[in-house]
Order: sequence, then structure tokens, then C-alpha cells
Amino acid sequence: MGTGMVAKNIAPRIAELGHDVTLATRNKEETLSRPGNGNNPSFGDWYKDHTNLKLANLSELGDADMYVNATNGKGTMDFLNAIGAEKLKGKTLIDITNPLDFSNGMPPTLFVCNDDSLGEQIQRAFPEVNVVKSLNTLTAPLMLNPEKLNSDSTVFVSGNSEEAKKQVRSLLEQAGWKNNHIIDLGDITTARGTEQWLALWVRLYGHLQTPMFNLAIVK
Amino acid sequence: MGTGMVAKNIAPRIAELGHDVTLATRNKEETLSRPGNGNNPSFGDWYKDHTNLKLANLSELGDADMYVNATNGKGTMDFLNAIGAEKLKGKTLIDITNPLDFSNGMPPTLFVCNDDSLGEQIQRAFPEVNVVKSLNTLTAPLMLNPEKLNSDSTVFVSGNSEEAKKQVRSLLEQAGWKNNHIIDLGDITTARGTEQWLALWVRLYGHLQTPMFNLAIVK
Repeated sequence: MGTGMVAKNIAPRIAELGHDVTLATRNKEETLSRPGNGNNPSFGDWYKDHTNLKLANLSELGDADMYVNATNGKGTMDFLNAIGAEKLKGKTLIDITNPLDFSNGMPPTLFVCNDDSLGEQIQRAFPEVNVVKSLNTLTAPLMLNPEKLNSDSTVFVSGNSEEAKKQVRSLLEQAGWKNNHIIDLGDITTARGTEQWLALWVRLYGHLQTPMFNLAIVK
Repeated sequence: MGTGMVAKNIAPRIAELGHDVTLATRNKEETLSRPGNGNNPSFGDWYKDHTNLKLANLSELGDADMYVNATNGKGTMDFLNAIGAEKLKGKTLIDITNPLDFSNGMPPTLFVCNDDSLGEQIQRAFPEVNVVKSLNTLTAPLMLNPEKLNSDSTVFVSGNSEEAKKQVRSLLEQAGWKNNHIIDLGDITTARGTEQWLALWVRLYGHLQTPMFNLAIVK
């Protein structure tokens, strides 16, 4: 779900791990004609090199084992509503998005936090979907490539369905996350913790001048 | 400042590092007669073993090079107001407290977050004090004993005064924090990051079943 920077990072990697991947967009033609900016090539140019990925309008989506929410946080609810609860029913939805609010300038604040989270909002709006919050604690190029860092670091899963978390954990392990560095924080309310980590993440980004970092839990 | 669990952990350690330490309380007699609870001895019993630490009412406080806010977050402003801006003027105040709100049960939420922080509130209320947010990211027994963990981890400083941050960094290094693991996040607004880390910290505490952990930043 989504065709932005995050989707363009993780979709090819999930395909590389042996899965069939479809990029879901609301308007294929618009996505393919979207211009590039700065160092980023246009989606159309990028897509020419990634023809192993399908690109589909929401109405064309086939059945899937797993959905990945890689839309912009602010646009997530509209996007999910456009797909519809019926399509997502009973499925695992990995929510890798953060509720970042850039409307007050940089660094961003969060448009939901403290006693709620975007993960919970999605779960409440789609009670029959198995939402698993994960991977939202790091930059897209590291999400499924933890080996790019100098030493082992930690990733989290939050969700109400043990079965869905198992499925996500399996994908994470396939991508190189070590089992003992994948922490299951508990139910979907624990997404509050990983989403609010962003408040420290954005300050670390400012200090380190690179998004290529992660936290490791040390005991 | 304070005579609770945090103060009882760090005050003896700061004394051990060679500093004269006074525990500041609003009512010595009340503090000394406060009963213990559970595994915690009463303050009076504890104090018998720590007679190298002075205990003083706020009116008796002498001059100090550095103040440490180890009061309860909710009580911080009242406590600082009781000491008074004149006493604190020009001094370094290490704020190790978190704005934890237990009124809605466990785990706690934060009574200030997102676009503000307790560190900033103190700085705004006492503009002539040099507030340095630090050490609030870990449990009291680890604050000045980082060697208790199995490997190096990270600690942060946030504040507007470079001079005051230098003074705090020096104390941290004395306590065993390695220079390259002390991250200066920037001005006092960056306290939002370390205070909101608590949202993840409380969930990790739930998962790990011990507060004896910290984060390490991995690049």
C-alpha cells in the first residue's frame, strides 16, 4: 500500500526474499506520471527497473496473504477505507507507518500519541484485520536490511493476533533480523511506544546527520 | 532535590565520586519519619547508613555548583518554586525527572509531550537557570553505573547552555559513561525526545520484566 519512498525501498526487498509483490495505488496512471524530485527518480523511471513488482489500482487488487501499510501516516485511513474492510478481513496488515505531523515545521510532531496510536486507530477502524505494528522504528532502507548496520540492533512487533505476529516475525527473520533481536512488546496498544520513539528518532537524525541508525536494547 | 527512590540511588553514588551532596527536602522531620514500604527501608533507616550525605530543608540549603532534580515529575514545579529562582539563578540544574502520569493506571502516560516537555517547562519557568535534561532515559540504579549492563549503551544531554552541558558531561564521564556514548541532542527542546522514549521504555519494562536495560545507538 503506497508508492512513496518507503514502498520503493521495501517492495523490491520483499520480492527479493521470494514473495509476489503488488504495489497498490489509487491511480496507476497518476503514479506512473508523477515527476521525480531532487535525487529521487520519477516513479515511472524507477518502475522500469522493477518490473517484477506488479502495480495495481485498488479495484484490481487480487487476494494477498499479507498487506503492508507503507502509505503516508496522514493518508492511511483514507487509503484503507478505499480498499475496504471486506478485502482486508482476516488478513495480516503490517503497519510500518508513523503518525508524523509536518504541519508545524521540522522536526515533525505526532498527530496521535500518548494514550493512543495510529496502530490502534487502524485496529479500531478495521476490527477484523490483524494489525501488526512493526518496522516503524527505523528508516526504510534498514527495515528489511538490518545487516547494513555495524552490529545487531532491535526491532519490535505489536499486535493482538499471535498468529499474525508469527507471520510477521517470519518475514523479519527472512530479511535477516535475528530471532532474539525481535521483541514482541505485546498487544496493539504497545504501538504507542514505538510510534513515540520517533520523537527521539528525529532528534537523533538531527544529531547524527544520517537516518542510517537504530537502537539496540542492552541488558 | 528529592528524597525518593531516585535520590536514594544517585546521591550516594555522586558522593562516592567525590562530591559533597546535600539531599534537599521540604520537611526533614517528615522525611526522617516516613515509613518504609515493601522491600524499601524507611528513609530514616536508610539515612543511618548514609551519614556522609547532608539532609537539609530548603531554607537551609547552602550554595551549590549543581542541582539535580530527582523529585517526582508531578511535584517538580512546586518543589522548584519552593526553592526559588533567586537561589537557582545561574546554576546548572540536571533534570533527570520524567512527566509520568499514573492517574490512568499502568503503564503510565505522560502529562506533557509531543510539542512540549517537562525540561522545557522548567527552563521557561526559570529562564536564568541552566537546565540540562539527562539520565531520564534509564532506571535510577543504572544512571551513574552504566557498567552494570553487559555492553556499552547510550545516554543523552539536552540543554541551551553549552557550559552547563559540559559540566554534566564531566559528571557522566566520572560515573563511567564513555565520551562517545554521551550524545548531545541539542537545545532543551530535544528533551521531548528523551521524555517520550519513556512510552517505549515502560513497554520494554513490561516485556523484559526488569528495569535494568538501556538503549544503545547502533550505526
